[in-house]
Amino acid sequence: MSENEFIFSDRILKSNRSFIREILKVTSQPEIISFAGGQPDPDLFPLEELRTASELAFQKHGSQLLQYGISEGYTPLREKIFERYYKNINYPGLSPENILITTGSQQALDLIGKIFINPGDPILIERPGYLGAIQAFSLYEPFVIGIPLEDDGLDIVVLENTLSKTNPKFLYSNPTFQNPTGKTLSVEKRRRISEVLRRENCIFIEDNPYGEIRFESKTIPSIQSFYPERTISLGTFSKTLSPGFRVGWVCAPKEILDKLLIAKQASDLHSNILSQIVLNEYLNRYDLDLQIDKIRNSYRLKKESMEESLKKYMIDFADWVSPKGGMFFWLTLKNEMNSMKLFEAAIANNVAFVPGNPFYTGTPEINTMRINFSHSSIETIERGICRIGESIQKLSAISV
Amino acid sequence: MSENEFIFSDRILKSNRSFIREILKVTSQPEIISFAGGQPDPDLFPLEELRTASELAFQKHGSQLLQYGISEGYTPLREKIFERYYKNINYPGLSPENILITTGSQQALDLIGKIFINPGDPILIERPGYLGAIQAFSLYEPFVIGIPLEDDGLDIVVLENTLSKTNPKFLYSNPTFQNPTGKTLSVEKRRRISEVLRRENCIFIEDNPYGEIRFESKTIPSIQSFYPERTISLGTFSKTLSPGFRVGWVCAPKEILDKLLIAKQASDLHSNILSQIVLNEYLNRYDLDLQIDKIRNSYRLKKESMEESLKKYMIDFADWVSPKGGMFFWLTLKNEMNSMKLFEAAIANNVAFVPGNPFYTGTPEINTMRINFSHSSIETIERGICRIGESIQKLSAISV
Repeated sequence: MSENEFIFSDRILKSNRSFIREILKVTSQPEIISFAGGQPDPDLFPLEELRTASELAFQKHGSQLLQYGISEGYTPLREKIFERYYKNINYPGLSPENILITTGSQQALDLIGKIFINPGDPILIERPGYLGAIQAFSLYEPFVIGIPLEDDGLDIVVLENTLSKTNPKFLYSNPTFQNPTGKTLSVEKRRRISEVLRRENCIFIEDNPYGEIRFESKTIPSIQSFYPERTISLGTFSKTLSPGFRVGWVCAPKEILDKLLIAKQASDLHSNILSQIVLNEYLNRYDLDLQIDKIRNSYRLKKESMEESLKKYMIDFADWVSPKGGMFFWLTLKNEMNSMKLFEAAIANNVAFVPGNPFYTGTPEINTMRINFSHSSIETIERGICRIGESIQKLSAISV
Repeated sequence: MSENEFIFSDRILKSNRSFIREILKVTSQPEIISFAGGQPDPDLFPLEELRTASELAFQKHGSQLLQYGISEGYTPLREKIFERYYKNINYPGLSPENILITTGSQQALDLIGKIFINPGDPILIERPGYLGAIQAFSLYEPFVIGIPLEDDGLDIVVLENTLSKTNPKFLYSNPTFQNPTGKTLSVEKRRRISEVLRRENCIFIEDNPYGEIRFESKTIPSIQSFYPERTISLGTFSKTLSPGFRVGWVCAPKEILDKLLIAKQASDLHSNILSQIVLNEYLNRYDLDLQIDKIRNSYRLKKESMEESLKKYMIDFADWVSPKGGMFFWLTLKNEMNSMKLFEAAIANNVAFVPGNPFYTGTPEINTMRINFSHSSIETIERGICRIGESIQKLSAISV
């Protein structure tokens, strides 16, 4: 019997493997300098602190570490997340009960798709937008509408128009140091977008994995703080402490959280308890802000170094907006150079990035690309950008 | 603005919170003896061994413990799972590549629903069946058809008839020490069912969380061993080592595994790495079979003790089939006594169980109930069964 006879669901037949995760396999050879992933710098993980926290967890919690837990997540951790991130949101009754721990914020995206999207429902997402969100939502077969990004974030005119025409289930955005573009929605636009969303009764999904990885001192108020009644806020420890722990969270109005909880129970019962308790012990004992300062300082230097190299090797070939935080540069290649072709040339020259295509739903802008600066050393960054510059020159020479 | 205006997906509007997880909240007061959950005995967790394994993991793996991992799962763990459970399956090319690590086997159920079920698709499941599977699949809106259980498992005549009439996407079954009934499909029936399934080209989902928790010496061959080409096998470390780690797995033909992997990437990128590596270190250093022997011996005694108490306090009120493994007794109350009413009376008498209703899709058999013997001590078991007996007598007195 041929295996080809399996009859799969329509939703999965329309889906492809994650392009980035496939790229990561190609780029795992040691000779390749990879700016493709979105991984944190492993040298900045608080390894010794988490090891101590893990020892404390085993000492203090015994078999609780190993037993089934509640679907909502470990209560002391939910309380700490609330205190740190949501205490000052002006929304009556908001409490740690509004926090649900998820298996990374990727799971939050999946659960949101599950509880909101009927096939064909319109949803709005930044264009280009976060690939993981596109993948998670797509499996629920929505009609995805991209809202273009300007240098200071979402295009409000297009947004307003689209909202009133399509009545979407929600707008998903990564407004601070966006993945993939590194762009940040300005404070003024945050206010205005909140008003527009409120007028249209539209749910807003504020995905904020990078907000704390900022290179300037002043914090940016969340859209949730202007529009708490219909914002679903997503957070994670993946960029600050450990992605491997897969501990993220959702903060949402109670009625939404109740539905997310039903979906969570059906999806994995609850998230890993050991890691939740280890993180809670870490937060009891150490200062997360010091850890974040370390990351900020390091990534700021890496970002500056990458920008210097970009100026040195690629100023004639690409444009970019200098990111004020996060992990990525987004390049627009001049002369409509195709970044997929550049990718092939670059791999041949032992350097990798992610072509822009997978970040677009609908027609991609084929001359865009994402390069990560958090994962490589400063020396490697210069060498890698130099190699990309070489590949562009080679490719230009062929085209001429 | 009222929160009631959120517009959810049809699938979630049809779903309820997990009845069992809600019961577990009610029964968490210390004065209540609870036979409701399906938790392992925490005294049998290999706490010291896992603590050592955790120390080794931090010593040996450093930042790899904390970084993003591959969606397939930690390779050495996949290899060990393959060696232990699938090496002898006679299917060409079956290898560790056919194993996908999931966030508990609950996630495997969700992913299977995602890749196979279009709304309205018929699927077959034991009647009564595992609640977590019913919940996971239901969110993909299948047409669920229950296949009744006989004392030696699935009713083959009904199965054969239903298969040819409905052409279902799959048959889901928990053939060994089933949750909730504790029943086991006989070897002879396994053979026959495999033939029937092969004839009808039907995918079989063999969920086997309890297979190793057997009270008799002889092992029972899996249905997968007779029908490897279309069986998806689910396993977990939740009943043998730790449910809190949320480490389960799927073993499936390559084409199915590829689709599961796409769904996995969209659902949570990958499962917790720390726990995968800790489990792998545990398996490197300790003998899982000794751990399982400990569990078997303890649960066998508990099961015998519960059966003695059932004979002492409930022989006039209920029938049951003595389970040969697993964690549960399934009772059929005599005189059509309603187990939901008994549940209320029992809670008032400080003892809890799960009424049979939630394990049925369609019309339930209202005089059934599940009682767990793994989680309570032997002394508690006798006291608790005595209290259930008292509650039945009280309820019978009222009805008369």
